[in-house]
Amino acid sequence: MRMVVVGGVAAGLSAASRARRLDRSLEIVVLEKGARISYGACGLPYFIEGQVRSIEDLVVYTPEFFERERDIRIRTGCEVIAVQHGRREVVLRSGERIGYDRLVWAAGSRPIEKAPGGHILNFQTDEDAERLHAFLREKHPRNTAIIGGGYMGLEMAAALRARGLEVTVFHDATTLLNREDDWLTKRVAARLSRCRIDLRLNTRAGSPESLPFDLVLLSSGARPNVEPLVDAGAETGRGGALRVDDRMETSLRGIYAAGDCCETNHVVTGRPVWIPLGTTANKTGRVAGANATGARERFEGIAGTSIVRIAGLAVAVTGLSSQQARREGFSPVEVVIEERSRPKYFHGRKVAVQLVADRNSRRLLGAAITGDDGVIGRINVLATALAAKMRVADLLSLDLAYSPPYAPVMDPLLIAAQQLIRVLE
Amino acid sequence: MRMVVVGGVAAGLSAASRARRLDRSLEIVVLEKGARISYGACGLPYFIEGQVRSIEDLVVYTPEFFERERDIRIRTGCEVIAVQHGRREVVLRSGERIGYDRLVWAAGSRPIEKAPGGHILNFQTDEDAERLHAFLREKHPRNTAIIGGGYMGLEMAAALRARGLEVTVFHDATTLLNREDDWLTKRVAARLSRCRIDLRLNTRAGSPESLPFDLVLLSSGARPNVEPLVDAGAETGRGGALRVDDRMETSLRGIYAAGDCCETNHVVTGRPVWIPLGTTANKTGRVAGANATGARERFEGIAGTSIVRIAGLAVAVTGLSSQQARREGFSPVEVVIEERSRPKYFHGRKVAVQLVADRNSRRLLGAAITGDDGVIGRINVLATALAAKMRVADLLSLDLAYSPPYAPVMDPLLIAAQQLIRVLE
Repeated sequence: MRMVVVGGVAAGLSAASRARRLDRSLEIVVLEKGARISYGACGLPYFIEGQVRSIEDLVVYTPEFFERERDIRIRTGCEVIAVQHGRREVVLRSGERIGYDRLVWAAGSRPIEKAPGGHILNFQTDEDAERLHAFLREKHPRNTAIIGGGYMGLEMAAALRARGLEVTVFHDATTLLNREDDWLTKRVAARLSRCRIDLRLNTRAGSPESLPFDLVLLSSGARPNVEPLVDAGAETGRGGALRVDDRMETSLRGIYAAGDCCETNHVVTGRPVWIPLGTTANKTGRVAGANATGARERFEGIAGTSIVRIAGLAVAVTGLSSQQARREGFSPVEVVIEERSRPKYFHGRKVAVQLVADRNSRRLLGAAITGDDGVIGRINVLATALAAKMRVADLLSLDLAYSPPYAPVMDPLLIAAQQLIRVLE
Repeated sequence: MRMVVVGGVAAGLSAASRARRLDRSLEIVVLEKGARISYGACGLPYFIEGQVRSIEDLVVYTPEFFERERDIRIRTGCEVIAVQHGRREVVLRSGERIGYDRLVWAAGSRPIEKAPGGHILNFQTDEDAERLHAFLREKHPRNTAIIGGGYMGLEMAAALRARGLEVTVFHDATTLLNREDDWLTKRVAARLSRCRIDLRLNTRAGSPESLPFDLVLLSSGARPNVEPLVDAGAETGRGGALRVDDRMETSLRGIYAAGDCCETNHVVTGRPVWIPLGTTANKTGRVAGANATGARERFEGIAGTSIVRIAGLAVAVTGLSSQQARREGFSPVEVVIEERSRPKYFHGRKVAVQLVADRNSRRLLGAAITGDDGVIGRINVLATALAAKMRVADLLSLDLAYSPPYAPVMDPLLIAAQQLIRVLE
């Protein structure tokens, strides 16, 4: 029995590792298009910023580790261009064919706008980061245009600003970070403005070639790498990502998918979404890998939790914004409070908490938190509350830890919940 | 209609404030034994350590604020020595009688061992802290014995060590911090040892007067202030604390209790416990205050979540330890893992996570976390999971936030849950 895994980053390697743990006799082959496997792509902006000295520092495991410790064969530089599911074969760009009994598709995503090179670059892979790094070192650009105000775009804006470049961000929608939330967009815009990053909301940049900037970064979004599977007959859904059931099996029996190339279920709406993130890649990879060996595990879905640091500001979200909730058929009610993350005498900084609940069911639907610290723990509490389908009243009685060095006696989350209860009454 | 609240710190003032919000016409009188109201008693060790410059900095609200903004009458220096519930009167030490229609008892707790003064002091109230502060300034003690390894004892041990004193802690049990947990005790003991605090576990100090130390702090535990209510016929339970129903009403109709003087329900066991903490005081105060005005709110109970900083080490717990779980009739299974709180290149420090689950139901029962950072957010996630009665498998699929400045892609909580699943399988 041979399992072939397409993709050697988060999802693919999680799948391969889990499969090996459950089945010692399976032959496992991972095919990775690029030259590196198992690197933390989310760390790339910090390589540009200078916090990470080398991309090698982002590599968690080497191919040798997988071969030696886990008996997993790793083949880099292998791009799969076709899947012939009837014959149980994948076809590589080289023409080589590799047979499989089980296939896990974890081919990730790629930028919607492909950069031509020169001073117009993408920023998604390790190779992109190396290209940009070399460009910065050799060309000393003084200004840059970043096309796209998603996570990567804004992290890169801050990283390049920290390196002294003049930065302009063009974003073709009115709200940032793939979150339809005017409040959150305002908080982020204020921080960008404080660092003198020029943010142009609701503005199309036009042709990258025509922009008068020393450096142009294309970061306007991603699309899933699914074409060979779609050609083989797999169904797709949101954003063109692969449809999967709750066992991460695609519509093609025996082919599982994981990571950025497939949909997941949203725990608040119960409906499929496409929110490609590294944590989800790891979790769906584990489930896909297990089920490809014959296990019957379920992936419970995601809350869309994420956090990003933008010029020192932690910006975190989970669940739905009011706008998103309304579109999903809820009657959202929203509050925003601002409180210290710790007592003043322990250098507590202001943390702003937005909670969204449904007027009818009084269930928590989503949240956003911004602040210079004390953000991640609190968004994680709310992500847990969403998974448990808690109502706002349940939040009120949460027994959260208190001690002056770490939190105020009435946690900002509880204060926000109290306000929301009042609005709901 | 007059509501009398006995106690002017966390629980009493929460009750009074909530009552005022729900009932604008009620007469509300708060009777406080001491001279100060509304101070953060948990901040007192930091006053001794020097982080807080004055106890006034710990005062959240003044009596004038309550009178002016909330129309709540505050009377300090008023100790209630008897309750005559038949006549709806409390009797003050001065002999004065004050009638009530509704009574909220929030009289807190006091040290089991009362210090005689001189170089033998307690450390519970603002007045205790002032006495100790003056002693340190005037007598320049070079060494101190602390009797009791609970929260306050260990915080004070670290605070006095930070001021340069030689510190010996005598603790008459084998486990610290009111938690029957050998693992946690070992972690804490290691940190104390690193700061050269001499910890004597399972050791009775003997008579404080006979101890050869310049300063002796008695911190061997607290007992609830309930005598006047008990004399009036109120029932007590664990630790001598007042029995209350889930509406915070005592066994005496029309008398509500809140804070350190009463029991609460434990969300894991569903049974009453007595775990006096400031956060619980605030929450039970709100419920008692509301119900005393005729509302019908419930207090859902506590998970026993707490955090303490001991010489830089954050030590946090929630729910039950294995030993406690066994005594409650569960079949506990426990794992401990140690992982970085953030990637290494973001200065991630090791955080140790202990999870306890029930072998039969696979429910999470409790947790403990220690580390120099990244502790409070994680214990709060687990406290939320306990409130939601989550199973270990539910933890595995929690959608926790990830970004290199804040967390690793596989959060230590998820790694611990994975290990625990393996043990349960």
